[in-house]
Amino acid sequence: MPTISTRGKAMPQSPIRKLAPLAEKAKARGIKVYHLNIGQPDIKTPKVALDAIRSFDKEIFEYSPSDGNKSLRIRLAEYYRSFNIDVAFDDIIVTTGGSEAVSFAFNSCLDPGDEIIVPEPAYANYTAFAIAAGAVIKPVISSIDEGFSLPSIEKFEEQITPKTKGILICNPNNPTGYLYTRKEMNLIRDLVRKYDLYLFSDEVYREFCYTGAPYISAFHLDGIEENVILIDSVSKRYSACGIRIGALVTKNKEVRKTVMKFCQARLSPPLIGQLAAEAAMDAPPEYLMEVYDEYMERRKFLIDGLNRIPGVYSPIPMGAFYTTARLPIDDSDKFCAWCLSDFEYEGCTVMMAPASGFYTDPNHGKDEVRIAYVLNKEDLKHALVVLAKAIEAYNNR
Amino acid sequence: MPTISTRGKAMPQSPIRKLAPLAEKAKARGIKVYHLNIGQPDIKTPKVALDAIRSFDKEIFEYSPSDGNKSLRIRLAEYYRSFNIDVAFDDIIVTTGGSEAVSFAFNSCLDPGDEIIVPEPAYANYTAFAIAAGAVIKPVISSIDEGFSLPSIEKFEEQITPKTKGILICNPNNPTGYLYTRKEMNLIRDLVRKYDLYLFSDEVYREFCYTGAPYISAFHLDGIEENVILIDSVSKRYSACGIRIGALVTKNKEVRKTVMKFCQARLSPPLIGQLAAEAAMDAPPEYLMEVYDEYMERRKFLIDGLNRIPGVYSPIPMGAFYTTARLPIDDSDKFCAWCLSDFEYEGCTVMMAPASGFYTDPNHGKDEVRIAYVLNKEDLKHALVVLAKAIEAYNNR
Repeated sequence: MPTISTRGKAMPQSPIRKLAPLAEKAKARGIKVYHLNIGQPDIKTPKVALDAIRSFDKEIFEYSPSDGNKSLRIRLAEYYRSFNIDVAFDDIIVTTGGSEAVSFAFNSCLDPGDEIIVPEPAYANYTAFAIAAGAVIKPVISSIDEGFSLPSIEKFEEQITPKTKGILICNPNNPTGYLYTRKEMNLIRDLVRKYDLYLFSDEVYREFCYTGAPYISAFHLDGIEENVILIDSVSKRYSACGIRIGALVTKNKEVRKTVMKFCQARLSPPLIGQLAAEAAMDAPPEYLMEVYDEYMERRKFLIDGLNRIPGVYSPIPMGAFYTTARLPIDDSDKFCAWCLSDFEYEGCTVMMAPASGFYTDPNHGKDEVRIAYVLNKEDLKHALVVLAKAIEAYNNR
Repeated sequence: MPTISTRGKAMPQSPIRKLAPLAEKAKARGIKVYHLNIGQPDIKTPKVALDAIRSFDKEIFEYSPSDGNKSLRIRLAEYYRSFNIDVAFDDIIVTTGGSEAVSFAFNSCLDPGDEIIVPEPAYANYTAFAIAAGAVIKPVISSIDEGFSLPSIEKFEEQITPKTKGILICNPNNPTGYLYTRKEMNLIRDLVRKYDLYLFSDEVYREFCYTGAPYISAFHLDGIEENVILIDSVSKRYSACGIRIGALVTKNKEVRKTVMKFCQARLSPPLIGQLAAEAAMDAPPEYLMEVYDEYMERRKFLIDGLNRIPGVYSPIPMGAFYTTARLPIDDSDKFCAWCLSDFEYEGCTVMMAPASGFYTDPNHGKDEVRIAYVLNKEDLKHALVVLAKAIEAYNNR
């Protein structure tokens, strides 16, 4: 047989995916699994977006332009301006989800062997896309004891080599919920300027900042406008993960021109998803306010509940809808698998994402898990009881 | 500024895309442009597919599974069986268009420097995806004088090196409309077996075979079942290019496992497109029959018309909805641009794809263009008149 590619072998399998068959088996045994592991919100998509699909009045599902429908790009530019992000519609390229924006950004900017510095824990698929592009992630570790704030700039500088091409941040952060401060963002800016790096900034959770602290976009930083590549997605803000509509935004013409070659090769982003995304932006302001209030409440409820379980510690996440918590266990990979394969309480168990998948070095995050608060409060309440019982049973097994 | 990646620089810009701004300018001058350049059919999407979207009754656009909805995969397996292609649903991975299937196949199977042999002229984006994966396309040239039949096996063997990992074919062919014979497919099979290669087989036009000659799928070839990676798309058969739903089909477990890592990194294919694709398969048999008859008629009409223009020659395409024709001109890149920038006849002009974009060596195809017969007969009729006038005017300018 011909061989598999080296990059294909090196591509990681996310720890959640490894757990999926165990969850299926648990469900087959009649056990209710609380999905604390995923970023699929239970929040309804705005009705205007659903209705836009339902009233589709053309007779052909045609290709759309490779950079996306102009009307959507114009609406996105308006949307960004409401966050004081000053971009024109032609700075925006519509992508098939935020995922494709990451993939095209890496493919356009990074050569095999090039390095990007990433504060960890970090969204696992960045690593996958980096490997696919032949690039190398150089981690700087943020610590749960410091609330996952930005690691010191010295830690970043230690990782700088002639191969360093960029820094990647996720703000507000998946998986920690941390929101970078103005001061931290300025430190990142200085570093980007000093070493002339790309700043890949994934800001898909900007709608979800809970503490009153300001959301500082990479585009709010002076003097690095041409270095910034913003990754965006409508999935989270409109609970529309399935439509696969994201965006890559940059004022750097050379990058845009290169990204467009990748866009043209794949012809076009999904047509119907674009219609839904554009319509979603007409959702009444109450929609996002209600969603916000709901997450705000769940967050308080979850974090309070977690910190009441003996030995459990979660910092208070400032944004997004995740927290990375420390549990009193030896190995979160083992524990999360055990919860699905060997445990139940009143016919229920919990599925969480072991944090090992969010670190390049699998020895980090051994006692950490990511918990998403995308379940309603009733379910969260019971899930917390089940989790407490699981920890107790696991440690007494 | 940080630099662009080497692969980003090397990515080709399709010759059609280079012409697009000229077409826009022509339209702005009030000129009607007959689009003979594109693969966007004017045929209506089946009503059942449109209705499936219109009756979407869920409240959330959720992620679908990374390998696609199981119900769609089951329907696809049934569909393939109707062509005597014996695959199970779990041999099928749903992708975001056939484009993503090509990209994931190359990324999973090819290392930087690895070579694939491709009969040319060939669909331009294969080259783009090969470059993105760091792989190298080694062309074997098929000739218009031999109707674009398979080049001799000696030509293939001359290109074999220790780096050769696969052969890529498109059957029925874009851009030539050629349909490989049983004998030719057996020669490919023998080569694949002899050198233990992957056979990437793009068969998205299988519904459109016009001559009574059989469609021979790569899966019909004995003894290379594990080597075959079939690329498919619902775009063309259901005139649904905008939904971005394709498939990668292989019996090779290692390949599937690797492709799945790429699938998981991008989370899921488009949800709504999958619903449309699945519904489209419920279209009444008359739908595909009528579409078939329509293309059949247009093909005859176009080829007859082309061959009546002095100095023009087109072989008779056996499938798909393209032909690659020879024109009595010096340079099809120049000619196609000139048609848009400097010519009109009765307020009209034609846009075609210069064939240079379908060859690795830009010196090939200098006097060839690809013409798609995706316009109705009335438009095709006038477009042929305009083309004849354009050739005359160009050569007398």
